[in-house]
This record gives sequence, structure tokens and C-alpha cells, in this order.
Amino acid sequence: MKKIGVGLLGCGVVGEAVYRGLAENAKAISARCGFQFDVKKIAVNNISKKRVGVSGGLLTKKYMEVVQAPGVDIVVELMGGEEDAFTAVTTALKLKKHVVTANKLLLAKRGEEIFDLAQKAGVKIGFEASVAGAVPVIRTIKEAIASGKIKSVFGIINGTSNFILSSMMERQTTFADALEEAQNLGYAEADPTFDVAGIDAAHKLTILANLAFGTPVKLKDVHIEGIGLLTPDDFIFARQFGRVIKLLATAKNDDGKLDIRVHPAMVPANMPIARIDGVTNAVEVDVSDAGRLMLIGPGAGGDATASAVIADLVDIARDMAHCSSARVSPTGFLPHSRKRLPLKNIDSIKGGYYLRFTVDDKPGVLAKMAGILGDNGISIDSVIQKGRTGGIVPLVILTHEAVEKSVKKAINKIDRLSTSQARTMLIRLEDGL
Amino acid sequence: MKKIGVGLLGCGVVGEAVYRGLAENAKAISARCGFQFDVKKIAVNNISKKRVGVSGGLLTKKYMEVVQAPGVDIVVELMGGEEDAFTAVTTALKLKKHVVTANKLLLAKRGEEIFDLAQKAGVKIGFEASVAGAVPVIRTIKEAIASGKIKSVFGIINGTSNFILSSMMERQTTFADALEEAQNLGYAEADPTFDVAGIDAAHKLTILANLAFGTPVKLKDVHIEGIGLLTPDDFIFARQFGRVIKLLATAKNDDGKLDIRVHPAMVPANMPIARIDGVTNAVEVDVSDAGRLMLIGPGAGGDATASAVIADLVDIARDMAHCSSARVSPTGFLPHSRKRLPLKNIDSIKGGYYLRFTVDDKPGVLAKMAGILGDNGISIDSVIQKGRTGGIVPLVILTHEAVEKSVKKAINKIDRLSTSQARTMLIRLEDGL
Repeated sequence: MKKIGVGLLGCGVVGEAVYRGLAENAKAISARCGFQFDVKKIAVNNISKKRVGVSGGLLTKKYMEVVQAPGVDIVVELMGGEEDAFTAVTTALKLKKHVVTANKLLLAKRGEEIFDLAQKAGVKIGFEASVAGAVPVIRTIKEAIASGKIKSVFGIINGTSNFILSSMMERQTTFADALEEAQNLGYAEADPTFDVAGIDAAHKLTILANLAFGTPVKLKDVHIEGIGLLTPDDFIFARQFGRVIKLLATAKNDDGKLDIRVHPAMVPANMPIARIDGVTNAVEVDVSDAGRLMLIGPGAGGDATASAVIADLVDIARDMAHCSSARVSPTGFLPHSRKRLPLKNIDSIKGGYYLRFTVDDKPGVLAKMAGILGDNGISIDSVIQKGRTGGIVPLVILTHEAVEKSVKKAINKIDRLSTSQARTMLIRLEDGL
Repeated sequence: MKKIGVGLLGCGVVGEAVYRGLAENAKAISARCGFQFDVKKIAVNNISKKRVGVSGGLLTKKYMEVVQAPGVDIVVELMGGEEDAFTAVTTALKLKKHVVTANKLLLAKRGEEIFDLAQKAGVKIGFEASVAGAVPVIRTIKEAIASGKIKSVFGIINGTSNFILSSMMERQTTFADALEEAQNLGYAEADPTFDVAGIDAAHKLTILANLAFGTPVKLKDVHIEGIGLLTPDDFIFARQFGRVIKLLATAKNDDGKLDIRVHPAMVPANMPIARIDGVTNAVEVDVSDAGRLMLIGPGAGGDATASAVIADLVDIARDMAHCSSARVSPTGFLPHSRKRLPLKNIDSIKGGYYLRFTVDDKPGVLAKMAGILGDNGISIDSVIQKGRTGGIVPLVILTHEAVEKSVKKAINKIDRLSTSQARTMLIRLEDGL
């Protein structure tokens, strides 16, 4: 049996699952590709930590030792973070070693340099594990949709926030309670900022948009809003409108302009994406002519992520046996065919809006607000005004299609009224992309 | 721009869509793989038929002329049927030409010979289009799930029958009416036997099981039941049990035995597969450790099928550029690693059952039937007995888990009672594989 040497950088939940998966499924893997993977060295922060089934003799604290070890043909980067990971990955590529990484932050921030280096070195950079865990969305976009033009790619690609939103939708809990529950269950980290602020989803979306549209995308191109400001009221109103709230990551090629954003959206409850609950991930790709594909599966977890890492290793083995590591370019497009799409400004997008105003419960308030909306060319689809109790009440308006800039202008004006008692909550409606 | 010569066998809905797709998306395709595809020759039955945008000079009635034409590097077989298609495909492979086919019947019946020939010739046989149209299920099973062991693969892989079942579920129409509607809309053929009898789904399932489990599968290994005997009553009762009826294709590796079947199944209405309506296809793959992946998309139609054909062409181009056509074996497994799994007999499967008896509306009938079920070790989960009108009435029983052999034995006995007035309808419950 031919053997391929693997070096692991990082041996946390995913690293251990990769190590275990390669051992336990060695027979199934070689039945498919004719190779066995031999983990030669593992870089970890804490050498003395007990790791079930991992041979202590493989461990080192120095990641460059792993990268440079002569027996290591493929470097699997699971360290996370930016600087050290970048050094490790680029050193490996320069040594003409193949790289597999699950590091979406690294690719979102430094992807262009890394892809370019891999292309020049003629080696492979596998990153299926960086988006949506076991769901083969990278492979699908790079290889299965080679035929047509992709119009849009969108989905739920952050399990933590989707778990929190599912709880809030189901039980109308507060964000803080839902977050605490997610943390207790191990679905959210102690510092959940990346997940709940939409940053993790934005990292992943830059990768997907890059592959879908053949365009370099920077993290700062993405309009990002998190889920932290949503209240139980928003979920109650959503239900009354037959909708649910999801943190959607969407990227569209809008007539040659890139419309790319991550934000909470209200989607019809009968849309397939509305039914993706808990930590499951789902990505939908709309392809000209062919139609819409949807891929659903476990978006996180050691075993699911490890399965994507191992699929990339098998891919590399198949390429190593045929000297074809360059057969698919890192982005799926030939470098000279890629071009930077201009960005669509968020102010210029059009759509329906859910607006939750917080107002004094007084006669004439709605008339005044409706007037301001009308003055800005925004027509009202429906209104929910809570029972008259006096005091401060929520007042919810769903608009027909309107231009975002006008909506924001109207909200600004309404928020300055003496009868408005809090900043208005705006949630975009998404009725299918 | 480097060019690759393509020969088309067949120019119906799919063939025309491939021809058009290659022309219209030529730029997008070469941006990905660096090649242009040049359709050199097209074999058709009727040369004088008008084909929009297809140059008449390319047409010939002789398919072997296309296969053998020196400029044709890849043969795209869209003729359908068995004998001529087999001759065309095997001749092409022997000439060391790559082949792309959408012909599931051909692969279900003669796949082993064809895969073997492709392997020996060192050329590629692409067949993504043979199952689930644009949904990249072949690629996903062969390449993305290279890591673990597949426990089961199941899904809705015949759009025609799913369209009919969706209509029957929604509007409680008869099978005949739903079929006629499907025919009027172009979703069912004049002779719908292959689709409604489950044969088309069985063809596709043999292909999926072959790739999932690394085992040769023959069409006759599949237990097949169609949807033609379902009545509006069955859908009404299904709804009362919170279930829907789907024609499921399922293949399981049950402790080393292959359990492979196509039949109507009652699934809980909240299961993801229950929500796949109309001509959409969905395939779920359960992978040890990694979890369940589900792929959903348009399962038929010219453009969707053409998109899968073109993705295979791009794949071949990428391989031709790197001499790596053999990098993934036709079945995804190395030939010597495949072995024939023994079959699980349908009589030995266990599960819940929906049984619709047709009985005289007399006292004591239920007691008698329940007695027979009990004697055979079958316990009852729920019973629906329609209002007492005298005459002949349906009586429906949902069983707890039971062995199929015992269920059939009990039904046989019950059907011979003088109070039984028609053959009992049996539908298997499927609560998640």
C-alpha cells in the first residue's frame, strides 16, 4: 500500500477527528484511492494534554517543524487564526507541499495570496472544510456547476447563530437566554462574537462568492449585521406574518455588480431555507438554466469537518497519483479569467422591509409615520398595532418593495419624532433570491 | 483557445440543451477549464426535423459515424435505450474516447461491462446526468464522501411519480387523474410505465448503491413496487396519521447485507424528504461519523440534465489537460476493492406498516383481524375505522415494528376471510433511515 505523509497543525476537536478518521477508515479510504495516509507529526500548543488514541511521540509544539518535516507531503492546517496559519500555509506551499485547511478567516483575509501561491507552485489547496462542514459546497461550486453562470448563492452557514435563532423562534426567548443555552450545549463559544455578529458567516461567504462568480472578494466588501439586537417581539411578529427570521448569507451577481451581505432576514415559513433549524447548514445555488440546487447537512462538529478534510486528502492522493494537482485551479477559474466585480451599494438594493417602531400609544402617531413613509415613496403592505394600553407600544409595518436608501431616510425622520421612543428595528424581507 | 471535439448521439430536449448550453456558456466554460467544446457531429433519427440553433450540416442518421469521427474526442450518448447505446458507448471506449451519458437504463443493466471497459481503456465515463438531473449526487458520492462509510442512500429520484403523488396528496385525486394532469403538463410520457412502476427509480438506485457501497448491483436485485395501486383513501388516511406518501428509493448497508428497494412509503410529514414536492429530486446520504447530507434540485428537464452533462465535459477537459482521466475510477472504488454484497431478503426486513383492509362493516370483524395480527406477533399502533354505514368499508391499521414476512402471512390469512372484500393495501412506514 502506497503511503502519503500528513502533518497536522492543531489537534483539537477537528484535528483529533481527522486523526481518528484516517485510522478507523483506512480501509475504506484506500479502497477508493489506493493510498494510506500516515500522520507523521502533529503540532499542538499543549503537549501534555491527554488526547485519546493519538500517539504522544508525534506531538511537537513547533508548527514549522511539522511543515518542514521531510516525510510530510500534505500539511493539514487546523490551527485557526491568521498570522501563524498564514506563515504555515505559505511555507508549505512554497515547499511544494499540498495544503488542506478549514480556516475560513485565513482564506477570507488572505485567500488571494494563498490561491496565487498554490497555483504557481502547482500544488493543491483544499478547503472544503472551511464552509459548511461536511456539506460539499466548495466542490459543487468549483466542479459540478462548471456549465452555467451562477446568479446567486445564499444560505445558512453559521450553525451557532442558526441554533440561537431557532430557539428564539420556537420559544420566544431573549437573545441572551438563547445564547446561554447554546453555550451550555457547546454550540457557542465563550466569546461568541464571531458567530453572532455575522463575521464567521461573512468569512465563509467571501469564499463562496469568490468561487461562484470568479471574482476576488474581500471581507470588507460584505455588508454585515448580526443577530444581537433581535427581540422576542420580532419573532412573534414574524410568525404573525407567516415568516421566520434567519441569519442569511447572500451573494448575488446583480447585473454585473456584486451584492454581498450577511444579515438577519425574514423569510416565508414555507421557503425551504426557513426549515433549516439548529446547527444544520444549508446552501442554495441558483444557476442560469439549470435551476436551483440546495445542499443541506451538518455544518460543524469534529466528525463532520474532519470528513471534509479527509475528502480533500483523498482528492490530493488521486491527483498525486496522476500528477494532476493543477487540474482544477484553486478558485475553479483560470487566474486570467477572474475579474473584480464592482460592488452594489447596500443603499441601492430594493426589497420589502419589516420595520418595528417603538412609539407612544397616542392617536395620530400611525398617520404621521405613514405620511413620512409615503413622502419617501414607500408603500405599506401591512401594519400590526398592538392593543391600546397607553404608554409605549411596538408598531410594526411591512413595506412593499422599496429602495433601502429611502427606507433609511424615512426611519431617520420617524426616529426623530417626539412620539418615537427607541431606534427602529429594520429587518429585510427575503422572498427568494 | 484549445478545442475539444464533441459528438452528440441524440438531439432531443437534452441534446438540444447541451448544444445550446455549450454555445451560450462557451465563455463561462473556458474561464473555468481553458477549453472550448466544439460539437462536430450529431446523430439523430429524423434529419429533417427543425432544431432551433442547431446547424443542419452536423446531422447524420448513423450514430457510428459520430462515434468514429476522427475529430470527436468525447462521445455524449443521449439516445436512451439499451442495445444501440451499448454498442455506441463501448465502441467509443474501445477507441479510447471519453464518454458522457445520461442513460440510467444502460448503466443499470450493463454498467459493469461499461465501467470495466472505461477503466481498462484509461478513459472517463461521466454519468452525472443519469441520476437526479442537475443535482451532483454522483460526484458527491464518488468524491466528496471519500472519507467514511456510507450507511444508506435514499431519496426521491423520479420526478414524474413524485409530481403525481404530490397532486394526489394535495387534492386527493385518483391516480388516473393525476397521471393525466402530469401528461398534459409534459411531466409524464405517453407510456408512463417506467416512471410510475418504479423502474426508472430502480435504474437510478442501482447506480447510486453501486457507488455508495462499492458493490456491483443488478436491476433484479432491487425490490420494486410502483404507485399505480394507491387510492385517494390512502392519502386521506396518511394525512390523518401526520404522514405523506412518497415513492422512496432506498439502499442500505444493513450489517453487510444490501437492502435495496423502490416502493411507496409513508413518511412523517415533518421529515425533510416529505417536503420535496413536484418534479424536484432529493437524495439523502447517511455517512458514518459525518452525518446526513441532503441534495435537492431539479431532477429532470433539458437544461438541468444538460448542466450535468456539461459539468462532466468540463471534468474531462480538466483531465485531458493533465492526463488524469483515470484519477477517479468509474465507480469511485478501485476495481479490486469492490465486492458483491449479499442481498437482504425483503421478507426479513423490519418496520412499521400501514395496512388498509377492505371489509364488511359487521361486528366482530376488527376483533377477528386483530387476533390474526396478534397471532403473527404484530402489535397494533393505531386503527382508523370509518363510520358505520353498513356495506363495505376501509379499515386501516398502523402496526408497530414487525417482520415483513409475518405481516404478509397475516394479510394472506385476513384476505381469505369471508368478511374481506378486496386485497389489502400494504404501505411501509419509513421514519428515517
